[in-house]
Amino acid sequence: MQSKEIRLALIGLGNVGQGFLQIVQNDRLRLAEQGLAINVVAVCDLHRGSAADAKGLDVSELLSALAQGGRIDGRVKASHSGWDALTTIAESQADVIVELSWSDFKTGEPALSHVRAALRAGQHVITSNKGPIALAYKELRTLAEAHQAQLCIEGTVMSGTPSLRLASDCLKAAGIQKVQGIVNGTTNYMLTAMNRGVSYFDALKQAQELGFAEADPTSDVEGFDAAAIMAQLLFDAPLQLSDVDRTGIVGLTPNDIASATQQDKRWKLIASVERDNNGQIKARVSPLALPSTHPLANVNGATNAITFSTERLGDVTLVGPGAGRIETGYAVISDLLALQQKGLLK
Amino acid sequence: MQSKEIRLALIGLGNVGQGFLQIVQNDRLRLAEQGLAINVVAVCDLHRGSAADAKGLDVSELLSALAQGGRIDGRVKASHSGWDALTTIAESQADVIVELSWSDFKTGEPALSHVRAALRAGQHVITSNKGPIALAYKELRTLAEAHQAQLCIEGTVMSGTPSLRLASDCLKAAGIQKVQGIVNGTTNYMLTAMNRGVSYFDALKQAQELGFAEADPTSDVEGFDAAAIMAQLLFDAPLQLSDVDRTGIVGLTPNDIASATQQDKRWKLIASVERDNNGQIKARVSPLALPSTHPLANVNGATNAITFSTERLGDVTLVGPGAGRIETGYAVISDLLALQQKGLLK
Repeated sequence: MQSKEIRLALIGLGNVGQGFLQIVQNDRLRLAEQGLAINVVAVCDLHRGSAADAKGLDVSELLSALAQGGRIDGRVKASHSGWDALTTIAESQADVIVELSWSDFKTGEPALSHVRAALRAGQHVITSNKGPIALAYKELRTLAEAHQAQLCIEGTVMSGTPSLRLASDCLKAAGIQKVQGIVNGTTNYMLTAMNRGVSYFDALKQAQELGFAEADPTSDVEGFDAAAIMAQLLFDAPLQLSDVDRTGIVGLTPNDIASATQQDKRWKLIASVERDNNGQIKARVSPLALPSTHPLANVNGATNAITFSTERLGDVTLVGPGAGRIETGYAVISDLLALQQKGLLK
Repeated sequence: MQSKEIRLALIGLGNVGQGFLQIVQNDRLRLAEQGLAINVVAVCDLHRGSAADAKGLDVSELLSALAQGGRIDGRVKASHSGWDALTTIAESQADVIVELSWSDFKTGEPALSHVRAALRAGQHVITSNKGPIALAYKELRTLAEAHQAQLCIEGTVMSGTPSLRLASDCLKAAGIQKVQGIVNGTTNYMLTAMNRGVSYFDALKQAQELGFAEADPTSDVEGFDAAAIMAQLLFDAPLQLSDVDRTGIVGLTPNDIASATQQDKRWKLIASVERDNNGQIKARVSPLALPSTHPLANVNGATNAITFSTERLGDVTLVGPGAGRIETGYAVISDLLALQQKGLLK
């Protein structure tokens, strides 16, 4: 397979960024067999510093420096350091910008500005940042098209499990009528415990102790961002985040749990998108008691799953990891594979 | 999206061939939106006759003629009729040959000869015929490469559920270590009944009455063909059909069933392929009692599923239909989408 070198700049060196770099480092041979020869020409992180070199950075050296902590500027061999994200995007001569920086959920910033700048410069963008995509997918998609660039978002739903590619490349032609998913590992971990009789607050405490849930669990225990993203990507619906009906799991009582168990049902927080009888796209997130035979009923712990109901194939369900540094890092690989296989790399 | 016309000849007008034609007819607009403009320039079937026209056949008229039964020659508007399969492949000026004819399982014929002839002529081939692929994948793949043609086989495993594309395009780079699947709708239907206490022979009778199982159930109640195909496609293993270890479900006793149920397990016939400690690829089909929490344990009836165990993503499971005329017909659409998206159509 053709292995044209991919010149890539990485914005954001947190868990997911480092997970991606570990894959690049450990799987070099396997990635080359799949046509991916990745040259990391720049990295940048608000807290961890930056490094850039048009000839490419030494990923192994970079990972060591990151593991030791502190800022990396001057600690890895590079022709430039001290660049901020926008300078990195503008000056690194990368073909692909991977945007994985922490972003405010309400504004999508600073990721949103990074994505805009890269697309305006005609660079392909790969991101697993839900915020900017849920907020501004349509605007960004239009911007990408205007600049002959690609906007790749596999990691925004189900981490590196290739759910969006499966849906948009393989299932859209089968006529997707409805999507129902368990797209939030934290909530599902909590519900798995609650289905065993643990209370909401004890389950939340457990999830926080394991590092799944943030101190502010609002976005963790919902999943409306994924519903908004799927509505836009798979149904071309100009849906705002505020259009997603939301009911959390905090209201589920021990009684609700017991009565579902008695009927051989399991509570799951289901994000769904479907076309109603008037052709309107409706997106919601709410707890549903599913019969134990339903393909989503037995998806437990931090595992995620989506059922695509299609006209020609009936129900197709994909089950896989919904979080994790390596698993989400793999979403970047997945997007690079799509670009390479479709001949879209410049 | 670009919609270059695809000139397609269809060999085999049985259930799957007609299912495919129905999709072409009913979903013309949706397929065009996905970049597929399909022009059926020839059809041919040993029993149902043939028709060819370089300007394209009227699919609606063709489906009516087929529904009325008898041979179609002279009953649909066409510039040629009476062609056999090899003449159709040679003379129809099609870019893509869709080979869906009934074939002898032991020799793969006549499909194998059709596939060889088309590839030698540099035509892309799409087939859901397990026989020729399980028997001769490597030879056909080499032939395809020599003639710059593509050999597309999505329908050979899990009917139109895009399992092979998911695995080869999206998961191979994650390092597939093991594949375990329920890839035979008939057996799974029977086992679902047997797990409820029905005997093997009564379950087989039910399946035959529903039209799932053939009179000779050998190939239906196993699934070693799918194991051989996945070994070759996903592990590049030069495996023969005879290399697949096989244990059927006929030996499962009511005692085996009862004792599994007691332990909250379910019997499933699992086709598996994995790399052993010596790096050898082992393929087998055998009944396994899976804990009820296993993603394959709750796949019931004629539904199929495959779990891909990968190094970077852990387990990824795809669940979907494993049979059906429209569902398997959709496999052809799936392969056409892959060709179109990768810019491989001539």
